[in-house]
Amino acid sequence: MARLPADAPIGVFDSGMGGLTVLRALQRVLPTEEFLYLGDTARLPYGTKSPATVERYALQAGAQLVRRGVKCLVVACNTASAAALPAMQREFAPLVVVGVVEPGAAAAVAATRNGRIGVLATESTVRGGAYQRALVRLRPDAQVVAVAATLFVALAEEGWVDGDIAAAVAHRYIAPLFAADGLRPDTLVLGCTHFPPLAAVIAREAGPAVTVVDSAATTATVLRQQLITAGLVRASPAAAAHFLVSDGAERFRRIGPAFLGEAIAEERIETIDLSG
Amino acid sequence: MARLPADAPIGVFDSGMGGLTVLRALQRVLPTEEFLYLGDTARLPYGTKSPATVERYALQAGAQLVRRGVKCLVVACNTASAAALPAMQREFAPLVVVGVVEPGAAAAVAATRNGRIGVLATESTVRGGAYQRALVRLRPDAQVVAVAATLFVALAEEGWVDGDIAAAVAHRYIAPLFAADGLRPDTLVLGCTHFPPLAAVIAREAGPAVTVVDSAATTATVLRQQLITAGLVRASPAAAAHFLVSDGAERFRRIGPAFLGEAIAEERIETIDLSG
Repeated sequence: MARLPADAPIGVFDSGMGGLTVLRALQRVLPTEEFLYLGDTARLPYGTKSPATVERYALQAGAQLVRRGVKCLVVACNTASAAALPAMQREFAPLVVVGVVEPGAAAAVAATRNGRIGVLATESTVRGGAYQRALVRLRPDAQVVAVAATLFVALAEEGWVDGDIAAAVAHRYIAPLFAADGLRPDTLVLGCTHFPPLAAVIAREAGPAVTVVDSAATTATVLRQQLITAGLVRASPAAAAHFLVSDGAERFRRIGPAFLGEAIAEERIETIDLSG
Repeated sequence: MARLPADAPIGVFDSGMGGLTVLRALQRVLPTEEFLYLGDTARLPYGTKSPATVERYALQAGAQLVRRGVKCLVVACNTASAAALPAMQREFAPLVVVGVVEPGAAAAVAATRNGRIGVLATESTVRGGAYQRALVRLRPDAQVVAVAATLFVALAEEGWVDGDIAAAVAHRYIAPLFAADGLRPDTLVLGCTHFPPLAAVIAREAGPAVTVVDSAATTATVLRQQLITAGLVRASPAAAAHFLVSDGAERFRRIGPAFLGEAIAEERIETIDLSG
């Protein structure tokens, strides 16, 4: 008997390991779904690459997941969402393709009271302005300040997510946001999926008056709604997620758990070639 | 009249911008030479990739430079030197191909008195053990401790090369080297071309009894000797270096000067495709 479309896995794509924070939220909100995660670890980070290159890489990764029969795609990388979502939606139509920028912006707009929102993201996401545009689309009077917090990626990958160094780096990136008189944001959005492991140290630096949000939970809710609408919710319990990486399976298994929140068994990781 | 072989440029290859510290030393030691620098900025960093992938990328980059008529190749990246030098020397023979690991090891062995040498490098270089092997080959009784100082790359690219954060990161990586009783290194080798901008903060953390060496100057001396032997020294004054990057020309122009020590004019940077 042919497999039902609803039983197909959900494809989750990221430049590397940061997207595992999104996968974690997806698994929580969609516990019966099966997931196929692709981390383009050979070519990470995307955050310092040009939008054209990121779009090309994202289309290659998406095609790989589509060939493996996923029922929808989650672009669990802010840089790729910002640079490649429209191209992926065109290329893979009628498949549902969900990014993380719009849901992250929605979470920030839901949280803010004074309309002043700080965005912490990679250099590429900040320069591209996707968050700034998404926030103003949802709340036209929003005042947005975006900061390229490049070092957070390295800190999260090194596992240095608390302690003096993480605090000093957070201070250096975040303090200027609160220096201007009268324009203090009340909401900070983590515009990079690498940043949630640093949420506590970021929240401490920002202070109790500031809400720190990320896109993972909202993205999961958005996807769940789309699957319900499309009649594509899987009913039966699913197998554990499977992981495709373009390089460094050993490193993925070693560092990935800091983002996913659980161990990743060696036999669940498969190395693939994306360069073709 | 055909161009003399000695007048051809020297090809310098790096994963991105770190190799500019080597280019700087080459220009100082070989002031009449012309240089063609290739930074594989689309696929950096190499330091967290597997050796097989780094070798494949390095061969593509070398082929690109050879097609453009360079007279020799400098692999100005420790990770690529460690993973790909033998393959590049085979592939591009009889062209001279010089790496930075052996010269870096030679500099350390020349500097050490007690034979205890610390190596600061990327994760991939440390795991591959190339420095450890090169040092022991040159001085069989050497005691080598290698540290993967991942965050130094991000700090150097962010330009945070002094101040509290750089000092704290240096302390975290370097202090353990001096904690063991009686085994204190007297020499630290910067086994990544990204690290020279951080040399001062590293030297401060290590203390006055420790010599900090890098491979740039020694590599330039080694290459000069090989060019003399091969009769390939260029006699007439050369034009300014030309730069090829696989992505992000604007970022290269903005961040590169921190490594090269001088501004890089826009028209000297050309974007190329290396993925083929």
